[in-house]
Amino acid sequence: DHNGMLTDRNEVIPPENFSHVIGEIYRSSFPRIENFSFLQKRLKLKSILVLIPEEYPQENLEFLNKANIKLFQVGMSGNKEPFVNIPSDLFTKALEIVINPENQPILIHCNRGKHRTGCLIGCIRKLQNWSLTMIFDEYRRFSFPKARALDQQFIELYDDKYIKEVATKNSWLPLKW
Amino acid sequence: DHNGMLTDRNEVIPPENFSHVIGEIYRSSFPRIENFSFLQKRLKLKSILVLIPEEYPQENLEFLNKANIKLFQVGMSGNKEPFVNIPSDLFTKALEIVINPENQPILIHCNRGKHRTGCLIGCIRKLQNWSLTMIFDEYRRFSFPKARALDQQFIELYDDKYIKEVATKNSWLPLKW
Repeated sequence: DHNGMLTDRNEVIPPENFSHVIGEIYRSSFPRIENFSFLQKRLKLKSILVLIPEEYPQENLEFLNKANIKLFQVGMSGNKEPFVNIPSDLFTKALEIVINPENQPILIHCNRGKHRTGCLIGCIRKLQNWSLTMIFDEYRRFSFPKARALDQQFIELYDDKYIKEVATKNSWLPLKW
Repeated sequence: DHNGMLTDRNEVIPPENFSHVIGEIYRSSFPRIENFSFLQKRLKLKSILVLIPEEYPQENLEFLNKANIKLFQVGMSGNKEPFVNIPSDLFTKALEIVINPENQPILIHCNRGKHRTGCLIGCIRKLQNWSLTMIFDEYRRFSFPKARALDQQFIELYDDKYIKEVATKNSWLPLKW
């Protein structure tokens, strides 16, 4: 057994940049084979939301299928100067998936868990009414050393009026730890 | 009302370096007046564990008293070269407080939430059987730009045999998200 040492110690390997966000919402970089056991057995995921536009890898699809985890894909490109901006409505769509308790426990990820994921988490923090200073404190912690002013501006300018209406109608707010 | 703008927007201000750890365990830097409302109304804290040896500030004590939050103090100095090392038994004592559900929701903090707090969180991750790579990934995210090799060595060498015995006897393990 090649994994003898690992399994003996019952060791689990969360994906890089992994963290709990709130309630049953988690964030990370792109999960790899060595992380599957953590996602299935520790987090007991019901869904994954991926924010990249590319096709999901076959081995990840097989894992999701086997573990009975639902995949949501809201593909987007990151905010890059000078003229690429994430459309706000994609974020609203992503938020509707994430804060719906029916889809939780849910993991949000992009490639490195820094920029697209960081923007989405920032929008969740707006729904929690966090001060922008502390939203950016968290954004930078996860995006280091590649924090983008454009991402922070996106979070600040994101209009959460529509998602707040939907969330309030469905009694999804306030989000609970 | 000087706080008119804040209260109108229902804005909350988590402490710097704030994060959820697992279950009802949280971490942060030293909480200040502007964070009290977040700790009381959002996290609904039952206890705070402070890791500094100095006396707790009067205004914080008054807040805890008013909010009916219990204060635990396990004072220690950080790991500093060449000859200051945190005694392991202090960590075991701290862990016994933190992972006891009776004390949760609980916030762990030191001054900046980087080193002493980071070491304690690293020990919690050992109880969760996380790989050292991912324990250090998290340690560095919060201690940036002041990561200490000594802290990481401390986490690696910390002997969790005794705390695991206590935790198992009390059915505190496995820790739950």
